[in-house]
Amino acid sequence: MTQLPQLAAGCFSGARHIYALRVYFGDTDLSGVAYHANYLRWFERARSDMLRLLGIDQRAAFDAGEGAYTVAEINLRYVAPARLDDVVRIESVCEAIGAASCRMHQQAFRGEQLLAEARLRIGFVGPDFRPRRQPEAWRAAITGFINGSTITP
Amino acid sequence: MTQLPQLAAGCFSGARHIYALRVYFGDTDLSGVAYHANYLRWFERARSDMLRLLGIDQRAAFDAGEGAYTVAEINLRYVAPARLDDVVRIESVCEAIGAASCRMHQQAFRGEQLLAEARLRIGFVGPDFRPRRQPEAWRAAITGFINGSTITP
Amino acid sequence: MTQLPQLAAGCFSGARHIYALRVYFGDTDLSGVAYHANYLRWFERARSDMLRLLGIDQRAAFDAGEGAYTVAEINLRYVAPARLDDVVRIESVCEAIGAASCRMHQQAFRGEQLLAEARLRIGFVGPDFRPRRQPEAWRAAITGFINGSTITP
Amino acid sequence: MTQLPQLAAGCFSGARHIYALRVYFGDTDLSGVAYHANYLRWFERARSDMLRLLGIDQRAAFDAGEGAYTVAEINLRYVAPARLDDVVRIESVCEAIGAASCRMHQQAFRGEQLLAEARLRIGFVGPDFRPRRQPEAWRAAITGFINGSTITP
Repeated sequence: MTQLPQLAAGCFSGARHIYALRVYFGDTDLSGVAYHANYLRWFERARSDMLRLLGIDQRAAFDAGEGAYTVAEINLRYVAPARLDDVVRIESVCEAIGAASCRMHQQAFRGEQLLAEARLRIGFVGPDFRPRRQPEAWRAAITGFINGSTITP
Repeated sequence: MTQLPQLAAGCFSGARHIYALRVYFGDTDLSGVAYHANYLRWFERARSDMLRLLGIDQRAAFDAGEGAYTVAEINLRYVAPARLDDVVRIESVCEAIGAASCRMHQQAFRGEQLLAEARLRIGFVGPDFRPRRQPEAWRAAITGFINGSTITP
Repeated sequence: MTQLPQLAAGCFSGARHIYALRVYFGDTDLSGVAYHANYLRWFERARSDMLRLLGIDQRAAFDAGEGAYTVAEINLRYVAPARLDDVVRIESVCEAIGAASCRMHQQAFRGEQLLAEARLRIGFVGPDFRPRRQPEAWRAAITGFINGSTITP
Repeated sequence: MTQLPQLAAGCFSGARHIYALRVYFGDTDLSGVAYHANYLRWFERARSDMLRLLGIDQRAAFDAGEGAYTVAEINLRYVAPARLDDVVRIESVCEAIGAASCRMHQQAFRGEQLLAEARLRIGFVGPDFRPRRQPEAWRAAITGFINGSTITP
């Protein structure tokens, strides 16, 4: 039987989305730990995975000119460094959702050790980068996630 | 029961290592497809995963000052673009191994479509970046992989 | 006469450090503008340039095991997108300096348009990533910068 | 008099384009030197600067749906590592130009030390990523560069 590689894929646990990644060579800098800007890439990967699991197709919406989510504000706190080969778990919670934005809290852990955390305000914008109401179905999906009623598909 | 997120993890299939990744927002550029330099990151992730599955601990070797693998030469051919959300499968083969280097062939696919491929010469170097014989156990592990006798742990 | 390429190099203007960069293809994402994580890279480049102009040799200190600056906290606000080929001006101010840390404010502009801004707490850490007093000469150099008495070398 | 920061900007020297950059923290990996994938970013920056100096507006062409240059093939050889704070000089030569493609040779130096070099085949593609004739004015500009008749504007 042919074995298949395992693709990174998150899951829901109550009102929480959980995602995991490994730290590769290209994520580190000469201080020997993950470069600080890469946490933003990791948090973005987790959010994209969350949207995908919620049935939200970012690419189709972008291609159709319907708009995209964009980070409006992010408050990041670095607690402990991540090192090569570490498995980093990203836990994401959506704290509030409005017409054109939402607030999230994302934490990166290695085991029980908090590595970094971020509070974000995400805006939905049109192709002109001006705020726009997010699609009603997306808002409903995220609301379900906030309520903890979403199950990993 | 708590569900767990799935971590990216490759596997062996004969003398081939297979790894899979998804294209995220941060991998794309304004032309709408994956930025060409990111294939080097992806191929490196696949090689690191392969080494890990072969029981080779790059981080411990690096920390102990024993050296590291480094790309000496890479010939890359881009065939078709990868887009946001695509699942990209990286297939890696080690074509030859010497005392201080090895030759590899890596291909990136979306389904059956070849996206890009690379032929690499990888050198093993000491902390001074001068060529050094790779550890005997590593060479044995890679030889086993070349012979197709390695099983995913 | 052979012409020479111009290297990016910042300057001091009162208690402000000014640095400029251009947005390249690799900085953008498929939304057509600079990927949000890249602002952290840009702000870091500006801080490194500032340290260099203050006579602080990060690499020598790192190599000697004396420690390095690390971002402990960063509060980022995105105001307007940067596009391919834009010239982005980074203005950096050091607001306070302590024994083992300092606070900075960095802004990214295109002309008079604010694109993004960050408030940072930077810590000085040893090779073990634990807080450590920054070298006295470094603290003196940064204090001179805060007082606006530093002149571009 | 207010001092102005200096922006990275290349120049022509005969049939050669010369560009310079500094290695920042974010360019390095834990081996202490520049991460190998970043040379592709650097070479791309040099090519973009060259196009800009030739009066070729990539962004306008892209926005107008006229197409863009894309790397079809790149053969990279790494000779010596680049370290934090190094000044890296990129020298670029266009070796041949066809209807829809061109061939380039790019080298990265630190002083007289060659760090890496690349031979590239660049294709011009439409928004559908299919080969397309490059605009006649662009071809004329690049031909002038090949002939060594271009002067830094």
